[in-house]
Amino acid sequence: MVRTFLILFSALYFSVATAFAFSKSSGLEVTEYELDNGTRLIVIPDRRAPVVTHMIWYEVGSADDPVGKSGISHFLEHLMFKGTKTVPQGEFSSAVSEIGGQENAFTSYDYTAYYQKVSPDALETMMTYEADRMRNLVLSDEVVYPERDVILEERSGRVDNSPGAILSEFAQAALFVHHPYGTPIIGWEHEIAKLEREDILAFYERWYQPWNATVVVAGDVLPENVLAMAERTYGKVVASLAEAKRERIRDPKPVVAKELRYSDERVTNPVWRRAFLAPSYNRAEANEGEALDLLAAILGESVTSRIYKDIVLDKALATSAGSFYQGSALDSGYFGLYATPRGETTVEDLETAMEQVIDLMLEEGVNQEELDRARNSFLKTAIFSRDSQVTLARIFGSVLSIGGKVTDVTEWEDRLKRVSVDDVNAVAKKYLLRDRAVTSYLLPKKG
Amino acid sequence: MVRTFLILFSALYFSVATAFAFSKSSGLEVTEYELDNGTRLIVIPDRRAPVVTHMIWYEVGSADDPVGKSGISHFLEHLMFKGTKTVPQGEFSSAVSEIGGQENAFTSYDYTAYYQKVSPDALETMMTYEADRMRNLVLSDEVVYPERDVILEERSGRVDNSPGAILSEFAQAALFVHHPYGTPIIGWEHEIAKLEREDILAFYERWYQPWNATVVVAGDVLPENVLAMAERTYGKVVASLAEAKRERIRDPKPVVAKELRYSDERVTNPVWRRAFLAPSYNRAEANEGEALDLLAAILGESVTSRIYKDIVLDKALATSAGSFYQGSALDSGYFGLYATPRGETTVEDLETAMEQVIDLMLEEGVNQEELDRARNSFLKTAIFSRDSQVTLARIFGSVLSIGGKVTDVTEWEDRLKRVSVDDVNAVAKKYLLRDRAVTSYLLPKKG
Repeated sequence: MVRTFLILFSALYFSVATAFAFSKSSGLEVTEYELDNGTRLIVIPDRRAPVVTHMIWYEVGSADDPVGKSGISHFLEHLMFKGTKTVPQGEFSSAVSEIGGQENAFTSYDYTAYYQKVSPDALETMMTYEADRMRNLVLSDEVVYPERDVILEERSGRVDNSPGAILSEFAQAALFVHHPYGTPIIGWEHEIAKLEREDILAFYERWYQPWNATVVVAGDVLPENVLAMAERTYGKVVASLAEAKRERIRDPKPVVAKELRYSDERVTNPVWRRAFLAPSYNRAEANEGEALDLLAAILGESVTSRIYKDIVLDKALATSAGSFYQGSALDSGYFGLYATPRGETTVEDLETAMEQVIDLMLEEGVNQEELDRARNSFLKTAIFSRDSQVTLARIFGSVLSIGGKVTDVTEWEDRLKRVSVDDVNAVAKKYLLRDRAVTSYLLPKKG
Repeated sequence: MVRTFLILFSALYFSVATAFAFSKSSGLEVTEYELDNGTRLIVIPDRRAPVVTHMIWYEVGSADDPVGKSGISHFLEHLMFKGTKTVPQGEFSSAVSEIGGQENAFTSYDYTAYYQKVSPDALETMMTYEADRMRNLVLSDEVVYPERDVILEERSGRVDNSPGAILSEFAQAALFVHHPYGTPIIGWEHEIAKLEREDILAFYERWYQPWNATVVVAGDVLPENVLAMAERTYGKVVASLAEAKRERIRDPKPVVAKELRYSDERVTNPVWRRAFLAPSYNRAEANEGEALDLLAAILGESVTSRIYKDIVLDKALATSAGSFYQGSALDSGYFGLYATPRGETTVEDLETAMEQVIDLMLEEGVNQEELDRARNSFLKTAIFSRDSQVTLARIFGSVLSIGGKVTDVTEWEDRLKRVSVDDVNAVAKKYLLRDRAVTSYLLPKKG
């Protein structure tokens, strides 16, 4: 069985982009190569166990799906497990499971990635299989159309069966009125249903090329050995099309406050959410990305945060409440607030209380003490996340796939440490504006 | 001076699609021809005065603008007045004004049209000029780029200077989350600013072709004479590309109630609006379009309508309030409600009162008497509108440009007469649902 999953921006699915923390003094020596055909290779040493994580990242995601053909990127991700000209369906997955390895794949707005976690002696085999399916996938009718039904069922299970997901799709569409981030990663149902083999094939041809791939290897390996293996495998892949750039349309300036209400019989606990358009790290000026991350930490990412203390502890209005910053994106990111009312609290009262926390913070500003505390806590979480080898590889892969550099990762902790109280207050005042926001109310349906 | 204008769906700009009324017994004999190159010709007799209206309708509008290049259709409409290979800029317009004629042009989501109202002896000259600019337009940098600045100024004047228009753009984008009706006809500012000569040229080449044009002539003319003139002028135009069909993406099923709030210092009177997605005549099942037109008439298109009587007269909550049905579209239409509070009435109270009117109507249903009264009044307005020759020509041109037939116009009155109370109640229950609606609040900005 192939398990695939989607990375969705929504807090309802996937809370926060994994943070990353490596100070210059961390001693993490990341080696970067580029093969002759344009494939980039990143090797991250991790010698704690005889395990290696091998990932390939394609710089293409659902926001690159042709207009009217949403869901192609994710569809293709499924099809990548269907066999190639020389490798029958199932052989690659069997090779992973036979040695006790793990594999997975995920599609995001901006990238699509595949990985295996195996013992180091299987790395070259993994590379051989992965390089093979970069260009040799067999996309026959027999393979494509049954999988389309699988995806429609997946969508039905994920979205139609989840009131929160239904609302979340429209909230995303309201936040990004024009930009393709407003279209679901998995695609709109009526468009998935019409995707044809030719569409997928054209998309595969266009984007699954050596110049559009980054291979990330983390584990108990020597960079020069990995390079040699990569040259013997990926290095042999010949591009069939010249390098191309992604072009994305832009949204108009946000000026209208939006509210979305969705009522459903299946909702037992209401959910209140508000998302403010805010730049991603990639699009931010100076250190705004770092400041937004710390703002989220101060406001609502721990039990000592403003929102948690006020809303959950002191006033006991919510069973959960907090904030997050989605700063990992090629184009725009956003800043989110969320809360679930407790007991008899109405969503309206909860919203008022949440707004009071924000207004007070905007009025008095954050202080040095809470910034330091939030930063320490935030960095600890980030450092802890590095403990997972897959997460470690994923941090580099995602940053590099949206135009970032290795130093964006390795120097991030130092940049975070330089963020001042003024920096945090500046981004709060600049971005936490109702005109930039979509508020969503997930409500039980009255009988 | 060329005067161009936009047809915008929004009630804030342009209240209701002009209705049309011709019974089979009206004796209106419309003649339809097709030239060898595919140009369609419609001749409508109107012998009341020695005047003729000559219109050309291209089946292309802003909803056909390439994604990311919004505004092209409208931009091209401006450029159509800039001169051709053989006709210098200004000559066509001078020819119209010298004989005391009038001319104009307009761009909609689905079509772009040009017309002149002149004396019948000038008709062939008009056709000659119009046929010439179908394929011979000169689109040089010198012509295109200064006009782009003119359009940016036009947009600024129309939209940025109008709080209602600003909100209306986002309301339209919220109603049509995916379909291009969610993009302004004039285009998003940042996209207009990047339109290039090559973009316009490609668009002109693609759509300004004889097979994509309908010529409508209304006036004191004989059909066979008009046909002869059309053959001598339009008939000589050679297509440079083969016929193509427009392809439009579809929206996902609406399930989320949306509210948009826009506050602006320039707003003195708040405005409340609610638009429900509803099928256009073109997409409606059976007689739903006719029933929606009559529902709008019953609810709020005259001083005897439910909304007017309750909200404006009895409760005196609003200075204006009503409903309308936008049923003229190639794809989806919508049903609109609007109200402007009077005196100290809050928008919230007004909304509650409007909702009560709707709820009562849904609960008790409309009755035969009010249907008959509304139908009579509605038909009178429609018949009255026919008095304008330009409107007469425009009715046929717009219906034919969105896939309709001449009989859709000529038999409309008869179809309207067959609509029953049950038909009206059925569309009300089917389409006046909050999940299909976008509510907009235009509000003064608090100091």
